Amino acid sequence: MLIVKKFGGSSVADRERIFNVAERCIEEYKKGNDVIVVLSAMGDTTDELLWKAKEINPNASKRELDMLMTTGEQVSVSLMAMAISSLGVPAVSLNAYQVGMHCTSVYGNARFKRVDTERIQHELQYRKIVVVTGFQGVNKYEDYATLGRGGSDTTAVAIAAAMHADACEIYTDVEGVYTADPRIVPNAKKLDVISYDEMLELASLGAKVLHNRSVEMAKKYGVQLVVRSSLNREEGTVVKEVKKMEKMIISGVASDKNTSRVSVIGVDDKPGVAFKIFNTLAKKGINVDIILQSVGREGTKDISFTVAQDDLDEALRILDENKETLTIQDIKHKDNVAKLSIVGAGMMSNPGVAAKMFEALFNAGVNINMISTSEVRITVLIDENDVDRAMVAVHDRFGLGD
Amino acid sequence: MLIVKKFGGSSVADRERIFNVAERCIEEYKKGNDVIVVLSAMGDTTDELLWKAKEINPNASKRELDMLMTTGEQVSVSLMAMAISSLGVPAVSLNAYQVGMHCTSVYGNARFKRVDTERIQHELQYRKIVVVTGFQGVNKYEDYATLGRGGSDTTAVAIAAAMHADACEIYTDVEGVYTADPRIVPNAKKLDVISYDEMLELASLGAKVLHNRSVEMAKKYGVQLVVRSSLNREEGTVVKEVKKMEKMIISGVASDKNTSRVSVIGVDDKPGVAFKIFNTLAKKGINVDIILQSVGREGTKDISFTVAQDDLDEALRILDENKETLTIQDIKHKDNVAKLSIVGAGMMSNPGVAAKMFEALFNAGVNINMISTSEVRITVLIDENDVDRAMVAVHDRFGLGD
Repeated sequence: MLIVKKFGGSSVADRERIFNVAERCIEEYKKGNDVIVVLSAMGDTTDELLWKAKEINPNASKRELDMLMTTGEQVSVSLMAMAISSLGVPAVSLNAYQVGMHCTSVYGNARFKRVDTERIQHELQYRKIVVVTGFQGVNKYEDYATLGRGGSDTTAVAIAAAMHADACEIYTDVEGVYTADPRIVPNAKKLDVISYDEMLELASLGAKVLHNRSVEMAKKYGVQLVVRSSLNREEGTVVKEVKKMEKMIISGVASDKNTSRVSVIGVDDKPGVAFKIFNTLAKKGINVDIILQSVGREGTKDISFTVAQDDLDEALRILDENKETLTIQDIKHKDNVAKLSIVGAGMMSNPGVAAKMFEALFNAGVNINMISTSEVRITVLIDENDVDRAMVAVHDRFGLGD
Repeated sequence: MLIVKKFGGSSVADRERIFNVAERCIEEYKKGNDVIVVLSAMGDTTDELLWKAKEINPNASKRELDMLMTTGEQVSVSLMAMAISSLGVPAVSLNAYQVGMHCTSVYGNARFKRVDTERIQHELQYRKIVVVTGFQGVNKYEDYATLGRGGSDTTAVAIAAAMHADACEIYTDVEGVYTADPRIVPNAKKLDVISYDEMLELASLGAKVLHNRSVEMAKKYGVQLVVRSSLNREEGTVVKEVKKMEKMIISGVASDKNTSRVSVIGVDDKPGVAFKIFNTLAKKGINVDIILQSVGREGTKDISFTVAQDDLDEALRILDENKETLTIQDIKHKDNVAKLSIVGAGMMSNPGVAAKMFEALFNAGVNINMISTSEVRITVLIDENDVDRAMVAVHDRFGLGD
């Protein structure tokens, strides 16, 4: 079997943890398996490097920032190869250039285009544990480019896909994917299995276990993921294609406080206006989430939507700059809102689900601002102060607890 | 003009020094010149990385150590490119892989085989200052390999040679090459010009201004070097091919305390014995310096030679292991010895020079252990305690002071 294992920065933060990871990899290797390990930069290395850069040039180019950042993972992988070797098992570290992790040229947010397998194959043939830098690729200019948030997960999945690995294990500091955040809902239950689509919805809703891009890629290439803890031997949660069942199953409840609501008031009630607004925002890289349109006064309409809190200032600035073109009379926004979602396969064929969720919220005295649904998800926008209470109520109502 | 400038680790140790270097490079650039900057790792970075590695695995492979070490220069060059950009001049950082600094596969002590010029040319055409990692190359396996001591000087010369640069400036913490170490000989004089051969002798004799390999390469490719201070604007010392003059000129006096004497006693007085001894040592990478052979008792001979102090234990071990094969009856060694040399072009055609040197040492009451000469050098082995006194005496005798 060929196993890809990915460990985040906190799992390799110091000598002791590096050896903990080394031992887990050797354990796998000694079963007769081929092992590829993908690592992030140690502990706070990335932040420290960013801080150094900021000290020199607060507006440094992303190209140079990536050149700087990518040293972080290179340090991790070389030290890990040394640790594994010191325990008597041959190991070799490879960076993005050595593997051939080819990516697009968008510095700071590159995407993989192609992963070469030759070098890794070669090293595995010599029965070495291969330790690969996560988070980075090489673009057509032969420059390093980093992948943005969650990049190391994506690296692991990309390698697993290219190498046709039998398993891709993502090690984190939690034991798997839960029906809700255990810090908010104490009786939240760990899931044994979840489908790609459900995981995608959960990931985008703030269950920070796996990044969306890695799940999308895993789905596309049929890579079965396992999310498990680097601190213990629990089985974790398998993310894979799950056959749709007649019986609807709610997998979990998730919340996302990184949300703001923007309302544009009194825009012309003509075709194409909504398109223009969202196109203007999209061109600047701002993702819009739940959208709600209502009739305004005198042949106008009001449009509300949510954006990530980090994008709020930029969104407001863009809308204000284009106020006339977009026929906007007024712009309002609300910061202290949050999204609460239930996620589950086959939700759309079970119309009672939404009603059940709204009932639970009503009983808990939680007011609903906006509603959005997808194949596997129902999301409501509520007050940030209500979100923990709402989560417990919905979790209980669907009987998700242990 | 195309100028290559090399700065060592201490010249880029912190933010202030990085900007000092950035400004010097920009000054050159604004004269209309193309500028390539070669950098070492910042301050103590290399030692810190080595220490980290040692903590993980004291016997780490050199391949992995090089993978780790090379991140040091990559951090330097990216920060330097950021610093230059922040001052309004376009800059780009490149590592060994991006430039195409091709080297041999001897990890920790690689040698350049070929330097590609395409990428650097391309960046210079866009009028960027190009900042290149010193000390590192990429071998045929696409692995990083470091060049060993003085590697960044060699990188600068290799790039200057490949790019046919008009000048190659090596910035250090001294103002140039002196007739003697100014800390020992207070009236030592800075030289304006020195020949490659003289510089080679001085470098190998402990004048730690330039590493031998960089001078050898500069000589081979006719790259004119300038050694100057990164702390001021003094002119420095030019290292170039100097036409041999009839008049002998002593360039300087150098000493080297990193020396031990080894004596092998009572070896067979047959052809090939000396060859076998030195071949055995050479195969283990131990360089032997001054050699002195004398007649021993009853058909045997004694051979004395010097090795670097760091190599002494290893040399003694190897000789002891091969005692029988090499017909050695006894091995002795002496630690507290030092080499003292005078260096100058045309020395061999001026036979009075050696006598003059020995006279100065005699007058200073310094006993001579061994003697060795070359085209441009006379070296004596003396007691370590005598070396500073001897240096001043010889320096004075040849009238080298200001």
